[in-house]
Amino acid sequence: MSPTAAERIPISGLPTESTAWVGAGILDDAGRYLFSPSGRFVLAGARSAGAALDPIRRSLAGRILADVEVDDGEPEKTLASVETIADAAIAAGLRRDDALVAVGGGVATDMAGFAAAILLRGIAWNAVPTTTAGMADAAIGGKTGVNHRLGKNLLGAFHPPAAILVDPAALSTLPDRDYRAGLVEAYKAAWIADASLAARAETALPSILARDETSLLALLAGAIRIKAEIAGTDPKESGRRRLLNFGHTLGHALEAASGFGALKHGEAVAWGIAAAVAVSRRRAGLSDRDAASVLAGLSGLGPFPEPVRDRSRLEPFLARDKKTTSRGLASILLERIGAARVDETVTPDEWLDAAAIMSVS
Amino acid sequence: MSPTAAERIPISGLPTESTAWVGAGILDDAGRYLFSPSGRFVLAGARSAGAALDPIRRSLAGRILADVEVDDGEPEKTLASVETIADAAIAAGLRRDDALVAVGGGVATDMAGFAAAILLRGIAWNAVPTTTAGMADAAIGGKTGVNHRLGKNLLGAFHPPAAILVDPAALSTLPDRDYRAGLVEAYKAAWIADASLAARAETALPSILARDETSLLALLAGAIRIKAEIAGTDPKESGRRRLLNFGHTLGHALEAASGFGALKHGEAVAWGIAAAVAVSRRRAGLSDRDAASVLAGLSGLGPFPEPVRDRSRLEPFLARDKKTTSRGLASILLERIGAARVDETVTPDEWLDAAAIMSVS
Repeated sequence: MSPTAAERIPISGLPTESTAWVGAGILDDAGRYLFSPSGRFVLAGARSAGAALDPIRRSLAGRILADVEVDDGEPEKTLASVETIADAAIAAGLRRDDALVAVGGGVATDMAGFAAAILLRGIAWNAVPTTTAGMADAAIGGKTGVNHRLGKNLLGAFHPPAAILVDPAALSTLPDRDYRAGLVEAYKAAWIADASLAARAETALPSILARDETSLLALLAGAIRIKAEIAGTDPKESGRRRLLNFGHTLGHALEAASGFGALKHGEAVAWGIAAAVAVSRRRAGLSDRDAASVLAGLSGLGPFPEPVRDRSRLEPFLARDKKTTSRGLASILLERIGAARVDETVTPDEWLDAAAIMSVS
Repeated sequence: MSPTAAERIPISGLPTESTAWVGAGILDDAGRYLFSPSGRFVLAGARSAGAALDPIRRSLAGRILADVEVDDGEPEKTLASVETIADAAIAAGLRRDDALVAVGGGVATDMAGFAAAILLRGIAWNAVPTTTAGMADAAIGGKTGVNHRLGKNLLGAFHPPAAILVDPAALSTLPDRDYRAGLVEAYKAAWIADASLAARAETALPSILARDETSLLALLAGAIRIKAEIAGTDPKESGRRRLLNFGHTLGHALEAASGFGALKHGEAVAWGIAAAVAVSRRRAGLSDRDAASVLAGLSGLGPFPEPVRDRSRLEPFLARDKKTTSRGLASILLERIGAARVDETVTPDEWLDAAAIMSVS
């Protein structure tokens, strides 16, 4: 097999080195890109990730210490599932210089990455996202973790993967609804940080939705560069990295209040962005034109299922947002396409008002 | 209450700032030394830690978000217990700038520190050890974690406490056997790195065993300085920090094979040191005189219960030592009192030979 071309995106500034490799067909050469100090791997693959797992298994033949099946749904994103991965790795004789490969959607990579974070107090790992959400967001930047019955991602660690492999071949069995929902995170990255990428992605939307690999990879590589740059300057999310949570303050509450699974994460974020556009017009001087452009983008990615808008059902989840400090809710507002800021003065009430009226078309 | 005098030992080089405060009576002023960005604390105290918990509760009155009881035995050192601490903290409305205070023996501080490591992807924490083992070793240097059914501390994180409070008042209800077993770790630190401290601690042994506070604090402060210096130059234990595992390679296997609880950790380490002395005489040129001095120190701290010496029962646990890399077992040998080195050529068989003949008197 001839070597494939991959775009290399270094993600510097994190506690450990991290590199994203982006290219069509790179999974066939997975062994060239995946990192393990010992050369041995524990493979943790989601049930649904066969299209990506098969070439990886072929490429790593003879070097797989354990091959564990991982659940890939929010309800299974628990400490118990992490323990299942850990059990298999330890029983297989895991050593400190072995590495893990997580293959699947954001749930699988978050969980398996968290298992890598706590196994023997931290081993290296690699992420092979099989969803657009994972490629644009979840697998980049080092956040790993699981849900708690009182909220999403309340238990976890900052533990960046050594390598992230982004290959559209891994998306071949991804349902259209998930494909579109995940792209919300990629457009979000452009909207908060790169007006030029946002403009190109707006034009390319039809071909991206038609799964044209060149258009898709251009958007994903752009979104990864943005996330890499922001996460690298603020790995622990004390400052600028919070910008990536654009749409997430209300989005997390919408997702939780609607019941996990009723809304895809990206769909909840889409609604959260629509609400943030409303708040940003009033609070951050977002222009009518930029607001319309963001809403048109969301509309193109939709339609999205109707969320819970009821104040009394949303409010408890807003108060529990884990970005909350004693200073208040950290809200992300858009000043213009390409520029966002953190605002700690927006009240939960303002978000609840926006939830009542938000619209994406 | 007049302010108490505390010796301040900075532990630098770790991922986050860490300071040990050592002094008689400092728990009465706990609020001065414990760190929380928000000023609010989750208190996680072992059932057995009343002597330390009462003054801390008084000192932090009005600033305790949740007061959780933590188990403090090896069988309860599990991910499930960590989840119990996390549940209480999250239910109480924990925010990222709140901090945890762990009060108890090494099990309690390891578990609660691990809870702090993974709560909201990491909050600040403080350790108040109530055992000599915790004061000399467990609470210093940032290792946190829990046991797995296949071995000790196989799941965990490097997450240093912001402050460690070492006050002999916390030892008032500690049984004599635990008091002596824990001191093995303090003497170990002197033996591997500080011949002068080792000589002073040898002379002071009778008064230390009589619980004289001045003698005890001198040994503990010396041991903490050694651990701080070594852990600070090698926080992730890739090199020099492994020296602190002197006595632990076989010690962990003895502890596991004897059944957790049959031997205290410090007792297993004492046997492990006795074996390491035998291996070091043959492999590292340890002199008869220094060997006799170490064995006399162990003898003074003993007697220790007889461990499992059976090869077939020890061997599986030696092979699973988490310091093992593909290069081999990382054994720590003593060249002379005050100087140790890592050796990756000692075979499991040599340790099993030493286990058969080791003796501490």
